[in-house]
Order: sequence, then C-alpha cells, then structure tokens
Amino acid sequence: MDVKEKALLQHEKWRGKIEVTSRAKVETPEDLSIAYTPGVAEPCLRIAEDKDLSYKYTRRGNMVAVITDGSAVLGLGDIGPEAGMPVMEGKCVLFKEFGGVDAFPLCVRTNDVDEIVDTVALLAGSFGGVNLEDISAPRCFEIEKRLKERCDIPIFHDDQHGTAVVTAAAMINALKLVGKDISDIKVVTSGAGAAGIAIIKLLVSLGLKEVIMCDRKGAIYDGREGLNKEKQEMARISNLEKKKGTLGEMLKGADVFIGVSAPGTVTEEMVKSMAPDPILFPMANPVPEIMPDLAKEAGAAVIGTGRSDFPNQINNVLAFPGIFRGALDVRASDINDEMKVAAAYAIAGLVDEKELNADYIIPNPFNKKVAPAVAEAVAKAARDTGVARI
Amino acid sequence: MDVKEKALLQHEKWRGKIEVTSRAKVETPEDLSIAYTPGVAEPCLRIAEDKDLSYKYTRRGNMVAVITDGSAVLGLGDIGPEAGMPVMEGKCVLFKEFGGVDAFPLCVRTNDVDEIVDTVALLAGSFGGVNLEDISAPRCFEIEKRLKERCDIPIFHDDQHGTAVVTAAAMINALKLVGKDISDIKVVTSGAGAAGIAIIKLLVSLGLKEVIMCDRKGAIYDGREGLNKEKQEMARISNLEKKKGTLGEMLKGADVFIGVSAPGTVTEEMVKSMAPDPILFPMANPVPEIMPDLAKEAGAAVIGTGRSDFPNQINNVLAFPGIFRGALDVRASDINDEMKVAAAYAIAGLVDEKELNADYIIPNPFNKKVAPAVAEAVAKAARDTGVARI
Repeated sequence: MDVKEKALLQHEKWRGKIEVTSRAKVETPEDLSIAYTPGVAEPCLRIAEDKDLSYKYTRRGNMVAVITDGSAVLGLGDIGPEAGMPVMEGKCVLFKEFGGVDAFPLCVRTNDVDEIVDTVALLAGSFGGVNLEDISAPRCFEIEKRLKERCDIPIFHDDQHGTAVVTAAAMINALKLVGKDISDIKVVTSGAGAAGIAIIKLLVSLGLKEVIMCDRKGAIYDGREGLNKEKQEMARISNLEKKKGTLGEMLKGADVFIGVSAPGTVTEEMVKSMAPDPILFPMANPVPEIMPDLAKEAGAAVIGTGRSDFPNQINNVLAFPGIFRGALDVRASDINDEMKVAAAYAIAGLVDEKELNADYIIPNPFNKKVAPAVAEAVAKAARDTGVARI
Repeated sequence: MDVKEKALLQHEKWRGKIEVTSRAKVETPEDLSIAYTPGVAEPCLRIAEDKDLSYKYTRRGNMVAVITDGSAVLGLGDIGPEAGMPVMEGKCVLFKEFGGVDAFPLCVRTNDVDEIVDTVALLAGSFGGVNLEDISAPRCFEIEKRLKERCDIPIFHDDQHGTAVVTAAAMINALKLVGKDISDIKVVTSGAGAAGIAIIKLLVSLGLKEVIMCDRKGAIYDGREGLNKEKQEMARISNLEKKKGTLGEMLKGADVFIGVSAPGTVTEEMVKSMAPDPILFPMANPVPEIMPDLAKEAGAAVIGTGRSDFPNQINNVLAFPGIFRGALDVRASDINDEMKVAAAYAIAGLVDEKELNADYIIPNPFNKKVAPAVAEAVAKAARDTGVARI
C-alpha cells in the first residue's frame, strides 16, 4: 500500500486528527457550579475589568488559530476551505505534539482580503496567536500586514516565516562548513513568492548583502516592467547592479542557490558555473529544482531540500512549534525579526560543531531538543525587544 | 470558601477548561508522511471533489462552534468577547462531557449583526454545527435567521431553543400530573425576550392554544404601541382576545405561569387567583419570580425553577448535548421544530410515570440516560422530516 492509500485509510479511521477535550470534570452539582453557573460568573467579571486576565482564567494563553482560505494548500492550488482542513488539522497536530501548543483549525470560505482580515481580527480575542497557512501570494502579504496592525497578538504566516527561519538555520551551518561569511556571499534565488521573499528578508537581517532574486522571467531588477508591489520592494534591496538575464546567467559565480520554484530549473552546468564550494537549497516539493545527486556530481558542497528521503531536510516543523511556544510563554504581542533570527540560530546551534558535515547541517525534525531550544531563544528575543508582556 | 472564590481559584488552576488534543501520533517520518505531507494531500483532493467527504476525513462531523459576542453573558450584560470566554469554555466542557460533542469557543469582537453573521457564515465549512450563545435580543433572532439561510449546517441559539425544549419537557410531565391537556390550558408568561418567545413558539407546536405574554408594560396584544418586530409577531399568535392589563390581572384563571423575567414579579395573591392546580415555572436566575415555598403555600401544584437547590431544575444541559449529538449523528442540515419537540418528549419520557410527582417532573441533569435518549429521538425526527443527510 502506498502512502496515498495509507493516508486515506488512516484519515478515515481518525475521523479528525484533532479533538477538543475537557480539562474540567463535571460529575456533581458542585463541579457544575464551579465550571459553569453560577461560579463561572466570577472569572468573567474579573476579565471584564482587565482583559489581560483572559490569559489567566481561559485557554487563550496556549491557544493558536491555524487559519487558511484554502487558496494555496500544498501544491494543490485553490481547493477551498473544506478541502484544506486535513492539512490544517495536521498542522494543529504538529503544534501540539512538537510544541505543546493548542491549535485549532479555521478554514475561511472566501478569498477576499478584507473578509479574511475582518474575520480573523474579530476572533483575535479568543486566541493567543494566529498562524496563517497556505494563503496564496500576494494576498498573504497584505493579510498579514493588516492583521499585525489590527491585532495585539502574534500573527505569523508560516509559509513565509517558518520556511525563512529554517532556511536561515541551514544557511548558518552550511556557511560554517564552507568557511564563508554571510556578508561576503552572493545568493541567487529561483522563486519570488511568499517563501522566497521572506527567506531573503530574513537573510538580509542576518547580514546578507548581495542577492539576486529570479522569477519565471529571470532576474528581478528595479524598474522591470510588470513587477507586483512585493517584487518592486525586493528589487530595491536586491540586485543593486540591476543585472538582467536568466537564472542560469545570474548563477555564474554565485555562492548560494535557493529554490522555491519548480522542478528542473537548475542544471548541472549551472552548478558548475557557481563559485567554489557552492551551497544549494533546491526546495521545490516533492521534486526539487535539481536532484541532490546531480548537484553533488556537479560540485555542490552542501545540499538541502524539502524532502525527508535526502539529507538536510529543511522542514518547517523545526521552527513553528518552538516559535509559538516561546511567543506564548512570554505573551508576546508580535513575532518580530529578532525573534525569527533567534529561532534560526537556535536551530542551527543544535547541530554540534563536531558533528557538522555536508550531510548534517540541520537537526532531524524529530529531535526533541529543537522546540524547547527555539522557544527559549524566541522568548529571550521577545523580552530583549520589548514585545514580551510577562 | 464560597463558590465565587472556589471558581476563581479553580479557573486559575485549569488555565482553560478545554484543550485541543491530537488523535494522531507523530513519532516517525512515516507517521509524519501520513498525518501531514505528502500523504495528507490525498484526503484534501478527495474533499475538493466532494465536500461531503469533509465529514469522513476531518473532525467536522463531531465539531460544533460555540459562538458569542459577549453581549448577554449570564445576567452580566455586555461584557465583551474576552470576558465571555469562561462561559463559552464551560459550555464546550458540557458538550463534551454530556454529549461526546467536540465544541470550540469563539468570541466575536463585535455586536454588529452583519459582522457576526458574516464571520460565522465564512467559518461554517469548518464545523458540523453552530451553537449561538448569550447574544442579546432582538439581534439574536436576526442573526439566527440569517445564518440558517446562509449555512447548510444546524444553527441553534441555545438561550432560545434549549430553554424552550427543557421547559416543554417539564410542561409535558406537569400537565400529566395535574391531569390537564395542553390544548385546553391557558398559559401566561412574564418575559418576552429570546427565551420567552422561543418557549411559547415550541409550546404552540405542542398544541398550546391560549397564551398571553407579558413584558414590563403588561400584556402584549396586537396593536400595542412600541412593540418590536418579534413581539408584534407573537401578538398575532397569542392573546387573541387582545386583553389589556397587568401580569397580575392576566394570571387570574390561568393554568400555567412561565417566568423568564425578574425576581418578585409574582405574588402569593396572584397564585391564589389562578385556576385550580396551577403550574408555575418561575425561572429567573438566581432569584425566581416567586420563591417555590411561597408558591406552594399559595396553592401551586407543580413548581420548576432554574436552580439546582430546589426540585425540578429546568436546566439546558438536559437538552443541547443530546440535540447536537443527534443532529451530528445523522448529519442534519438543520435543527427544526420537530426535532425540538422530539427532544422535549424524550426528556419528559425519562421520568417514569410511577415515579412522577410534584417534586420530580424532569430528570436530574446528571442522569446519564438523558443525552443518548435525546440524541436518538432527535436523529429520528431529523430523518422523518428529511433534514438528515445520512
């Protein structure tokens, strides 16, 4: 039986991968009078006086909403809210199993930015944080930005920032291995969607100076016609020489390739044209921009993909459970760049320098030390930047 | 320590009365590939082809949203979404403990009817049903009506219909006890809000013909000035002789008093003026319209209140867990009048005729037979009326 059949059968058995359970026993009239009326009036009245007490008397402080409109689920395109639910439930399972975070899936039946923003903002008082998931670009940027303005709880689009954090962690260790400094390297990307843009922004926070982003039309440069708002913004901080040309032309002499695009975009010849000891993160899933064995043959020093059957899996599960765990632990009002950078260094730091090698630059997703280490680093960064509220 | 202090302390210990737990283990790469990527794509694709499969492959079929805007929480008035949460979590606990229903609390940060309706309608694909809770009248009528039109899952405002079902159950047995038929009696109410109106509508479905509803200004009659839309509607089906006067005047010769109003509304003299063997349900909480001992002294044959420290507690927990259990079991698209009537008879039927007496007309809230019996009756009624989808 292949994984598809197994998954289908198992989902039918589960009838839902999450469940809402009770932490309160209600077996006697006294139980009822404490968990419900009349006793429950007392915590209600306290919270009415001071909203922050919702973190003390309700589940809010450990509760994250996992929200999608179903528009960019896996590689499946816009399959709608009902069909997005198995992924969102899966995400909630990972939140709980890896981070001890209660997460609840909400699939919104609209692709309209205003409607999604309103819906989430109106529900924000019921949650300690919001994880946006599988919302297509460029709407995801606007939705995240507006929600961050309207809500006083962390808003985090995992497809952007989770991916960015784990890629940055892999980059930190890969650069150690080849002995290069992030401020000296040249990075070229294939893909300028939500993930690609977030990765580059975070790497710039880490010190990256030279980067060229490519989309299907080749290098993105300031002034290129037809760029959307986000690509225009990226054009101002990347490709400062305004080079024009194909991905292959841009890759000549580059130190790092980051792929968040499509299978087969990178050839062996392109890898051979890169700087010595090139690092490649072809993360298209399930088929990467170039297969790891080919990239290795062509001279790649370090290769990371999104797949579990190759070394160095760049998997978001390394980041989001610990990031939210840390943010919730200090009741952070935001998940800011400093917290993401801290998370990246924490993940990278779990690979012992003695063990670090080309096939081991990033911890295994099942390494139980990851989430606590990330949570601790994120909580500290939240405190250091003044967004922690306890 | 009184119940207030106990409740506060216990809520602090709980830090949330509900929790989202995982039904899936994720301990190995294979587990991950089945619960999450790549395996999860398969149930997603199946649901994209046929939305009804969301009931097979996700938690939807057992999941109810408990939704409030915090505008009428307990007797506390409009305390807002955060402060409403302890009650909503408590409600979710009761759903789970009494009915095996997963319920998740969502408190909406608006009192605007359009915004509440939009929010709930956009989320309906994530749930198998919606329980509206503690939303003030008359907005609750409009919200429920519009959601019923827009959603293909059951929408149920418990403050209206849960109360109505349990009151009807108590009425069925009280009438047995005094040997009167519902089609022959005269009912007078004090209170014409959400609960009062729903109770009368349901009793009319049960065969009640003569009823006068009173509000703070006395009897409601067709043509009285200043009536809101809902009271106007009730004026057309009640008080057909268009009697005018006070509650006390209306009660003369009445067989039944139903109170969903305020303490002290009914005096011993009024009880004495009623027909022989009067039935009184003074349900104002925590202090009833007339205290049971006074009513008894004045000649009441049967008395039911909302309180657990008197006999015959008219408690919604007898209804909503079983009603939703039954509706979910047959994937009902609605909870209609026939299902509510069936629930009322099922609750009443759990009091054995041999045991029936003036102090025992309704089952104890902790009677474990109630929810299954209600669920079975509701499921049957759903099938009989064509709203069951399996």
